[in-house]
Amino acid sequence: MLKIAMLSTGEEVLHGDIVDTNAAWLSQLFFENGFSLTKRSTVGDSQSALVEELLMLSFNNQVVIVNGGLGPTSDDLSTAAAAQAADQHLVVFPEWVEVLQRFFAQRQKTMPDSNLKQAMLPEKANLIDNPIGTACGFKLSINDCWFYFTPGVPSEFKLMVQQQILPDLKKQFPQQVGFECSKLYTFGSSESGLSDKLDKLQLPQGYQLGYRSYLPFIEIKLFGPANDLATRVRVLQLIHSHIEAYVVSVDEPMLTHIGHLLRDKGLSLSIAEQATKGWLSYWLLSDEQIARLSGHSWILSHGAEAGLSEQEPLAAVFALAGATKEKCATDLALVSGPLQDDTFCVALSTPHGEWAQQLKFNRTYSADDQKQLIATIAGDMLRRYLSAKPIFAHYSSVTSLKDMHLPASMLNKQPS
Amino acid sequence: MLKIAMLSTGEEVLHGDIVDTNAAWLSQLFFENGFSLTKRSTVGDSQSALVEELLMLSFNNQVVIVNGGLGPTSDDLSTAAAAQAADQHLVVFPEWVEVLQRFFAQRQKTMPDSNLKQAMLPEKANLIDNPIGTACGFKLSINDCWFYFTPGVPSEFKLMVQQQILPDLKKQFPQQVGFECSKLYTFGSSESGLSDKLDKLQLPQGYQLGYRSYLPFIEIKLFGPANDLATRVRVLQLIHSHIEAYVVSVDEPMLTHIGHLLRDKGLSLSIAEQATKGWLSYWLLSDEQIARLSGHSWILSHGAEAGLSEQEPLAAVFALAGATKEKCATDLALVSGPLQDDTFCVALSTPHGEWAQQLKFNRTYSADDQKQLIATIAGDMLRRYLSAKPIFAHYSSVTSLKDMHLPASMLNKQPS
Repeated sequence: MLKIAMLSTGEEVLHGDIVDTNAAWLSQLFFENGFSLTKRSTVGDSQSALVEELLMLSFNNQVVIVNGGLGPTSDDLSTAAAAQAADQHLVVFPEWVEVLQRFFAQRQKTMPDSNLKQAMLPEKANLIDNPIGTACGFKLSINDCWFYFTPGVPSEFKLMVQQQILPDLKKQFPQQVGFECSKLYTFGSSESGLSDKLDKLQLPQGYQLGYRSYLPFIEIKLFGPANDLATRVRVLQLIHSHIEAYVVSVDEPMLTHIGHLLRDKGLSLSIAEQATKGWLSYWLLSDEQIARLSGHSWILSHGAEAGLSEQEPLAAVFALAGATKEKCATDLALVSGPLQDDTFCVALSTPHGEWAQQLKFNRTYSADDQKQLIATIAGDMLRRYLSAKPIFAHYSSVTSLKDMHLPASMLNKQPS
Repeated sequence: MLKIAMLSTGEEVLHGDIVDTNAAWLSQLFFENGFSLTKRSTVGDSQSALVEELLMLSFNNQVVIVNGGLGPTSDDLSTAAAAQAADQHLVVFPEWVEVLQRFFAQRQKTMPDSNLKQAMLPEKANLIDNPIGTACGFKLSINDCWFYFTPGVPSEFKLMVQQQILPDLKKQFPQQVGFECSKLYTFGSSESGLSDKLDKLQLPQGYQLGYRSYLPFIEIKLFGPANDLATRVRVLQLIHSHIEAYVVSVDEPMLTHIGHLLRDKGLSLSIAEQATKGWLSYWLLSDEQIARLSGHSWILSHGAEAGLSEQEPLAAVFALAGATKEKCATDLALVSGPLQDDTFCVALSTPHGEWAQQLKFNRTYSADDQKQLIATIAGDMLRRYLSAKPIFAHYSSVTSLKDMHLPASMLNKQPS
């Protein structure tokens, strides 16, 4: 098996002050292309620690991607560490000096002396171009392991990996088979609930499942060999049939899916919210399509204005949905009511009828998690309406207490 | 120097599907207690990769914290890898079998056979109690390096580190001096702008600065020896004096600070927003204090209702702030107007006058970043009002185009 490692450098990454998004991005991209990482490591800005780690990695891997530490300042030590680990001298690479001079000339600036350091590389290094920055990358063999040194700036790192390093690896290791991924977005079941249903499935050779859960969604990823879309779609349908009740969208997040449904039907939406304190509007309006089709939203701080505290909450939220739709003159209105002792109401008003439900959390959630869960349940009612599915569903995080439904035929016969 | 490493295990962490929050948390805690990590690494669920990494780490470190892989399932391999690396047999620890039996009995469940695996440890391991889960931790010496094996569940991991591992390290290495940290939250300058001003400062022996930037704020952390608050406060004041214009709060985030100021003055707030599409309300109302003191918010989708598209935008937003305050009957109103070609307006209405400004972004930001920056500038106007500072300030991300101010004495003389 091909052994590939990644080394991230820098005190901020080591100490967790910044999240290592480059590493997550590289892991994913390499996996999809058949170059799974076997190990990742992180060291700070210490030359001895860097040299030690480079040597350790060289003994146990065939390929190592090193990220960061190629800048012009004194705490950028990756190049010096590479030279020491490879037992080579640092020499000036005139072709990169030229690039640097052009870079600064184009910006009408004189090059600071400190940047010259970025053209000093181990003598046997192969330069890797950086079309958008001053830090060139380089490829170097240490103890028969190929090291690719890359800049820490994410845009420069990603461009270099995509345009140069990945193609180079594919040329060197043509036998590695890449993966492609399809995604099911689910809401309403736990990860163990889903895996109980899916783990017993016999997937064809070369196919595997991955779970990625971030409240309130769990993403199910199906990986299969690249260039066989037909089989992957067939396997995806099999998986879908086992967890259909929880799938909210395929290959696009639920919010994007709702945006597409609204656009296709040309329906406008207004929002009123209380328990979600602005999250419902912010979340829905962060989708461009939904924002374009929306009337006003409002956030009721105490509920008195809407009469929410005076009457039975389910009936009040039900009435508020209709009133919001009418007041804003939109096709649809989505509403979250007050949160009282873990109990809340959500309602949807449409030209085909009105629905409201009262639900109770099954366990303790943080205030932010509560807002997200309530907003997602409201969003799921909207999605179900737009997909012509039953509006009320079962979600593992809440218990349904009561619901109300008024069909379109009754809408105008309501007592006012 | 004491060399301490952390090894995280698990495919999901390796492949970046989940963020390694345990690592960031441990780094921070250990640093504050004088036990800075020198290295972190991550390997997947492969016994050979685990054994190899344990041996590598044992040669170069005095202490290693291993996280994850202590569960009952077949992909939990840390204990078996530990035994192999230490060349020890796995034996049953009867004291942990008893704990497991009690754990399941208390929950009226029979213990699955798979859990017995969690009481099989390397023969010379020292058990570390887990008061809230079934995975015990253990301490084991491999090649004269002390390994602490810990469960991956964050609550279990954190409790074990705080209650047992950190005290054990302090007993073993009493000479390590801990740090305490003070924080300045800044907004409106770049990280290099701040470091240019601060890097020339001579800090007393044992004091150091750290920067943590997450749009739109940059946090400046001052670390100093524990148990010397007086000196740290003095140094903090020195730093503060050099970057005063950008400091928005001390030792608490700006939002919490605004919440405290509003509460202390007992002022209520209403919000109207357009460019920020709900983010301004969501962000402000996510603070408990502000939510308690807020009147309604509304989010205008197209601005027509407020007449925003019909007149000069600065004047329109200025008028909207006053109208919002009056309509919601609150002490204060904060407003964001429409975003047109990178240009936007924000306005504040108070009993002491009204302020509005029109600003333009200096470079391209994502839609989400734009919302956050506009909301933060609006929030900063509010903070400045509550702190009796000038309402208009300079921010490096935007250029000021125009502003308006009406003092309280003129408020009632405005033509309607």
